[in-house]
Amino acid sequence: MFEWNGELVRKNIKLWLEEDIGSGDVTTMTTIPLDQRSKGIVHVKEDGIVAGLPIAAAVFAEVDPDLLFEPKVQEGTSVKKGDILAVVEGSTRSILLGERLSLNLMQRLSGIATRTREYVDALEGLPTRLVDTRKTTPGHRLLEKYAVRVGGGYNHRFGLYDAVMIKDNHIKGAGGIVKAIQAARSQIPHTMKIEVEVENFTQLNEALSAMPDIIMLDNMSPEAMTEAVVIIKSKAPHIVVEGSGSVTLQTIKALAQTGIDVISVGRLTYSVSALDISLDLNERKESGL
Amino acid sequence: MFEWNGELVRKNIKLWLEEDIGSGDVTTMTTIPLDQRSKGIVHVKEDGIVAGLPIAAAVFAEVDPDLLFEPKVQEGTSVKKGDILAVVEGSTRSILLGERLSLNLMQRLSGIATRTREYVDALEGLPTRLVDTRKTTPGHRLLEKYAVRVGGGYNHRFGLYDAVMIKDNHIKGAGGIVKAIQAARSQIPHTMKIEVEVENFTQLNEALSAMPDIIMLDNMSPEAMTEAVVIIKSKAPHIVVEGSGSVTLQTIKALAQTGIDVISVGRLTYSVSALDISLDLNERKESGL
Amino acid sequence: MFEWNGELVRKNIKLWLEEDIGSGDVTTMTTIPLDQRSKGIVHVKEDGIVAGLPIAAAVFAEVDPDLLFEPKVQEGTSVKKGDILAVVEGSTRSILLGERLSLNLMQRLSGIATRTREYVDALEGLPTRLVDTRKTTPGHRLLEKYAVRVGGGYNHRFGLYDAVMIKDNHIKGAGGIVKAIQAARSQIPHTMKIEVEVENFTQLNEALSAMPDIIMLDNMSPEAMTEAVVIIKSKAPHIVVEGSGSVTLQTIKALAQTGIDVISVGRLTYSVSALDISLDLNERKESGL
Amino acid sequence: MFEWNGELVRKNIKLWLEEDIGSGDVTTMTTIPLDQRSKGIVHVKEDGIVAGLPIAAAVFAEVDPDLLFEPKVQEGTSVKKGDILAVVEGSTRSILLGERLSLNLMQRLSGIATRTREYVDALEGLPTRLVDTRKTTPGHRLLEKYAVRVGGGYNHRFGLYDAVMIKDNHIKGAGGIVKAIQAARSQIPHTMKIEVEVENFTQLNEALSAMPDIIMLDNMSPEAMTEAVVIIKSKAPHIVVEGSGSVTLQTIKALAQTGIDVISVGRLTYSVSALDISLDLNERKESGL
Amino acid sequence: MFEWNGELVRKNIKLWLEEDIGSGDVTTMTTIPLDQRSKGIVHVKEDGIVAGLPIAAAVFAEVDPDLLFEPKVQEGTSVKKGDILAVVEGSTRSILLGERLSLNLMQRLSGIATRTREYVDALEGLPTRLVDTRKTTPGHRLLEKYAVRVGGGYNHRFGLYDAVMIKDNHIKGAGGIVKAIQAARSQIPHTMKIEVEVENFTQLNEALSAMPDIIMLDNMSPEAMTEAVVIIKSKAPHIVVEGSGSVTLQTIKALAQTGIDVISVGRLTYSVSALDISLDLNERKESGL
Amino acid sequence: MFEWNGELVRKNIKLWLEEDIGSGDVTTMTTIPLDQRSKGIVHVKEDGIVAGLPIAAAVFAEVDPDLLFEPKVQEGTSVKKGDILAVVEGSTRSILLGERLSLNLMQRLSGIATRTREYVDALEGLPTRLVDTRKTTPGHRLLEKYAVRVGGGYNHRFGLYDAVMIKDNHIKGAGGIVKAIQAARSQIPHTMKIEVEVENFTQLNEALSAMPDIIMLDNMSPEAMTEAVVIIKSKAPHIVVEGSGSVTLQTIKALAQTGIDVISVGRLTYSVSALDISLDLNERKESGL
Repeated sequence: MFEWNGELVRKNIKLWLEEDIGSGDVTTMTTIPLDQRSKGIVHVKEDGIVAGLPIAAAVFAEVDPDLLFEPKVQEGTSVKKGDILAVVEGSTRSILLGERLSLNLMQRLSGIATRTREYVDALEGLPTRLVDTRKTTPGHRLLEKYAVRVGGGYNHRFGLYDAVMIKDNHIKGAGGIVKAIQAARSQIPHTMKIEVEVENFTQLNEALSAMPDIIMLDNMSPEAMTEAVVIIKSKAPHIVVEGSGSVTLQTIKALAQTGIDVISVGRLTYSVSALDISLDLNERKESGL
Repeated sequence: MFEWNGELVRKNIKLWLEEDIGSGDVTTMTTIPLDQRSKGIVHVKEDGIVAGLPIAAAVFAEVDPDLLFEPKVQEGTSVKKGDILAVVEGSTRSILLGERLSLNLMQRLSGIATRTREYVDALEGLPTRLVDTRKTTPGHRLLEKYAVRVGGGYNHRFGLYDAVMIKDNHIKGAGGIVKAIQAARSQIPHTMKIEVEVENFTQLNEALSAMPDIIMLDNMSPEAMTEAVVIIKSKAPHIVVEGSGSVTLQTIKALAQTGIDVISVGRLTYSVSALDISLDLNERKESGL
Repeated sequence: MFEWNGELVRKNIKLWLEEDIGSGDVTTMTTIPLDQRSKGIVHVKEDGIVAGLPIAAAVFAEVDPDLLFEPKVQEGTSVKKGDILAVVEGSTRSILLGERLSLNLMQRLSGIATRTREYVDALEGLPTRLVDTRKTTPGHRLLEKYAVRVGGGYNHRFGLYDAVMIKDNHIKGAGGIVKAIQAARSQIPHTMKIEVEVENFTQLNEALSAMPDIIMLDNMSPEAMTEAVVIIKSKAPHIVVEGSGSVTLQTIKALAQTGIDVISVGRLTYSVSALDISLDLNERKESGL
Repeated sequence: MFEWNGELVRKNIKLWLEEDIGSGDVTTMTTIPLDQRSKGIVHVKEDGIVAGLPIAAAVFAEVDPDLLFEPKVQEGTSVKKGDILAVVEGSTRSILLGERLSLNLMQRLSGIATRTREYVDALEGLPTRLVDTRKTTPGHRLLEKYAVRVGGGYNHRFGLYDAVMIKDNHIKGAGGIVKAIQAARSQIPHTMKIEVEVENFTQLNEALSAMPDIIMLDNMSPEAMTEAVVIIKSKAPHIVVEGSGSVTLQTIKALAQTGIDVISVGRLTYSVSALDISLDLNERKESGL
Repeated sequence: MFEWNGELVRKNIKLWLEEDIGSGDVTTMTTIPLDQRSKGIVHVKEDGIVAGLPIAAAVFAEVDPDLLFEPKVQEGTSVKKGDILAVVEGSTRSILLGERLSLNLMQRLSGIATRTREYVDALEGLPTRLVDTRKTTPGHRLLEKYAVRVGGGYNHRFGLYDAVMIKDNHIKGAGGIVKAIQAARSQIPHTMKIEVEVENFTQLNEALSAMPDIIMLDNMSPEAMTEAVVIIKSKAPHIVVEGSGSVTLQTIKALAQTGIDVISVGRLTYSVSALDISLDLNERKESGL
Repeated sequence: MFEWNGELVRKNIKLWLEEDIGSGDVTTMTTIPLDQRSKGIVHVKEDGIVAGLPIAAAVFAEVDPDLLFEPKVQEGTSVKKGDILAVVEGSTRSILLGERLSLNLMQRLSGIATRTREYVDALEGLPTRLVDTRKTTPGHRLLEKYAVRVGGGYNHRFGLYDAVMIKDNHIKGAGGIVKAIQAARSQIPHTMKIEVEVENFTQLNEALSAMPDIIMLDNMSPEAMTEAVVIIKSKAPHIVVEGSGSVTLQTIKALAQTGIDVISVGRLTYSVSALDISLDLNERKESGL
């Protein structure tokens, strides 16, 4: 995320602060003296994987460059209820202005990382990659895909622009799998991959005849997937095999044991269970600092 | 939402489309003929309350003003798995460009409306209002608060700008509840309300002496709340009493029966369980239309 | 203002500098050497109340972060013709680039603060609040409402979004005062106030039956207002009473003596009499510094 | 204005509507039925020159393209108290959303046009041009300069970018009038004019030796101006002579009779006396239409 | 381009119009009557390939939606000096406002398409793809890559985001070719390709051991390239081989005959030779229409 | 440029970086360690005039304020193949992120300065000014006009807003040269110049009768131009005479010798021959620094 495009993140943070602050924080500005300084303790209220510390830092930096934000754990760490994640120090007003946005973001990203880690743990010992989908919250895709990586997962394509993904609708539109793959290949850059989604062996054989870079086996049974993997790898070992369907923590291991290379799970980002994180303010005088 | 500030929504839709489409949808543009027309059927795959039809309409209108989007149910309707929510008709390319964003939005908003309705149903027969909080997804606050209304709930303040909400941190900063309320009242417009959060009867009495407009009872037991309501209403019947805490579907009714006017529930928007909605494309020729 | 939403102000300052500088300040860039440094003395050419020093500081900081802007009087001070308000020091080019915009803003804001102070002085000894309206210069509302506060006045609502204000047109649209108040109350957040405008006693009684938070007496005679205040306060002492009409410096005291809580005066911001302020440049060498 | 850069105006209107509407017009949306239609009558409450009809039209078009805005007088007409300026018809909600902004703009622009016309009338029969300055409201320069033209005046330069204007500070910075003029001329496009401000005859003679395109006589007595005009025109008849100072309606004619070509008056836009304009809503049914 | 992301193009067109028009077209607005209508004939003054007709249409539509722009040749057509490319009809003022921008764009895009076609023609009969690079004009990449396609070429990656391209600097940074490829593969989505640049056979063998998707042979002699192709294709036929260097119209055929799949040529977009295109205005009356 | 409007340039740099980086530089972020530091050497690969060093500095500052960019030659210097232009030092990742954009800009601007210098050299000893036109790359006008100045040329008007330029189309529209000049003069600020384009002596005489500020002789023979200059200067020596046509390095001297003041050459910016500049990365450790 941060390592990916900081400017985009800053632009979003400005919009999101504007959403919350609008014409001004009438409570903070009237009750907190201008020169009061505090220390805010960010701690977690349930077990999970922490993600979003750099984005929280960016929120506070946007609100007030003089705030000092110091993470107390590494991004991606498994934390326990009560652990302190970070400390932010400086103008009380500034801390309160950034509080809600930074928490809202950390809670959601940590929720995504936590769920991802559960799936990743279920795949332990297997070479299969766990990846996300485009079912992300509008405006949050880069951040949510970053949280998936923090949790130990990998990313699928970032948008409609960085890989061809031929689904049922495109196959119908183009007049068949082979036509669709050929149409795409004859127009896209040679630097771009083509993935095609197949639902049965007829489609698989058609797809193979046009040599896509990735084949996604959609909603097949484990037995069918196992067979499909054999067919694909025997014909073209460099083709990546992806599997998808209603994957749960219970079913993912069996799915991975079919030999597929990649499992894509929409629910990593689709329904987010936020991790409960809060910020406590200790006035400097009270805290003895 | 739509009735509230259409320009803001349009601005967000543009940003969100840009996030997904980037330098171009390489699949659709290479596989779907420019002049192909289709009909997309939006249907729901689990039971729930539908919300977001006008925003889906706005997404498709932004992508292509010539698309025809026709809702088949009313916003806020309770729908069953398999029900058709809307039909969109026009250029296949345009439908596919808008598909993911409109679904991502409808799924999330319908998820919020569905959960809200469950809480509202649990309050049936009681005069208590169910309201949301500021724990919304950054950039989506207006939409999510709209979905709460669609589900039958009400909204708390929209941001830091439209009401004073004095919490623990402000009380500490101002040097006490009375000072905080007076400081706020002496500076804010007379058109703005002051809400204060109290945790016990000492705080409640202090608060009452400064006559806020709303008193929020935070994490009190039902018994304490009942007593607090009596105290408040006997002193100043026009003060609105709000209750909060770890409200669940199981506990909400007991909470309401304490006599409080309003119950605020962060989880309405905090952890969103998206409602499963999808779009099927039937080519015009195939569908016989 | 500054304490309210700095980002919004910065965004406006950028737009306003762009309006003046466009493709470049052809005079300054060709006649002033790149490395010349100067000291600019901001002084006032007529008596009044100074407002806008922090915004002038923000303008110069936006033009060139290395400029040193030092206010010489407190914001809100009553100044005399000839008084020095501030000194700005640094690159001559930068000072000249920011000169016009910072003066245009300070002149207007000081004009508003000056007029506000005159009205406030006329209310001396009375508990009545003087407030502004939405008749502000488009794009300058936050700044102008800030200047009213600097002058000793208070603000009415900030926009259409932070309080309900039911006027004649809404009453007609809703089918009566009671219906209008009830329609609003049943939909808005419980954190929001409802103000209703009444012109006579029939309307007043209707309004009172629906218990708004604020009643505005529009264009009533002092006698009628006095009577209305008695009626309102006897029924519901917590209701705020606002008075409005063609308020002048001559009539305002009599109006306040009717017992109303708040007087709103459109002309505070409606026709701005700018206060004459100018900037003199003393080259560092000449000034002996 | 409109004929000058429509896109800029539209961009500003969006920002200005956002300032007023924010998260939504809570009054209109809760009290006015969605499908109610009305007719709004824009009339003037004092005598003056009307300006801003096209901008009011643009505001209503931005709010709702289906509103019908019909001017009833020509832009620039001299109107009497009570005259109807325009009628706007369509959704009541939309009319109310655009009301305040369109009135705020028309009132200010008509105020400028009205004052300009007074000065222009005072120059009747004389060939002298009345022009404005850069003392305009930030963000409103194009509109305010347009209003000056509507009132019968002319514009000075639009910003720092479209003409060289050498003032005292530039003269000091460059090391003299001649050096300043030469420095500018040797760097600016040949398509750009150079104006220089002089305060006495020594400066005038220096200026003349470097042949600027325009000479501004700053705060000279009418006698000195008369003499200066003779000197300039005898040396270089193509040089435009501009006069400035504390010009009032009383002094402007004498100033013009000195023979100068142009008189610049800051107060045309500096302290705006808004013209009182209001909008009355007649419901369609009531108005019998 | 247009088929790729219309919103981005529109946003650029607005910025570019603003660059040219600024505070207003002072010539057109003062000399051309408001209601004058004309017909503008766009014709080409030298032979070449036409590109940019849809973007010219978009420029005129942005200036004035009522302008009628009618292309007279197909995008990508080989045209002769004097050929009419398009006709635009409507308000004379609007045509003149859009003239320079639409011509500047068409001239540059047609220049790129024309040069691309020359290279493509030089490859006639060979299966080799001609592709562009990232050496495009800042802000014009999507348009320029579109013009390459119009000319018959193909695109390399669109930016830093849609494919991995490991060059000398990355190899040094990662500590070797194999490490660089492995580092990338272990972090990027499985939907993304990895290209690596090699300069000699040692590097080629290293690269092959890590199995990239594309190998770019940089500045090798034709003999070395021929040998490299044999080595690569014998080991991994699915790897795409790209060649680069100081490719000219004279050398490109020999380069292609080495058997490489793709030739990348920076100069397609690097130094643009604009194609001379102009717009003649025939007043409606004169032209007898 | 920089001395002209830094904010505009920064805004463009942000857009241009976004175009290249998009959702992230997948190569650099996966292959270059986060804390690696390097030194980038910017050197030129062919002879020419260097332009754009300040803009390259601004690009790197935008990417990472901690990068140290140090120019090694003066802007406008004549450099030889192999010369080092600048050194940039800091995070390797940051240098690579800014590399392509800074080079693309410097190459183009240096190309323009180089060509401009050739034309300027051809005019050596003559008082004639070489100026550019509005045939610039959309979005790059300020930068390209700056490069012309770096190369020793001058600028024509910056856009449609800063001077009147009456061409054939305006003459037709206004009903003749005299009418066009008068129409413009009667409406534009007195601070603005009027230039008129004439093609023959009839037009010249008409133009002279209306006294424009600049006369442009379009596509006349050297003999005709010589005669035209005599006519103009004898009538009104202060009128600037500009000549234009298909000016080449071969014909420009003869053109200048006709006595015209200014020669405008579209090709300075129209077809840009980029100057080949590249950046080599030496890791700090390797380079022994």
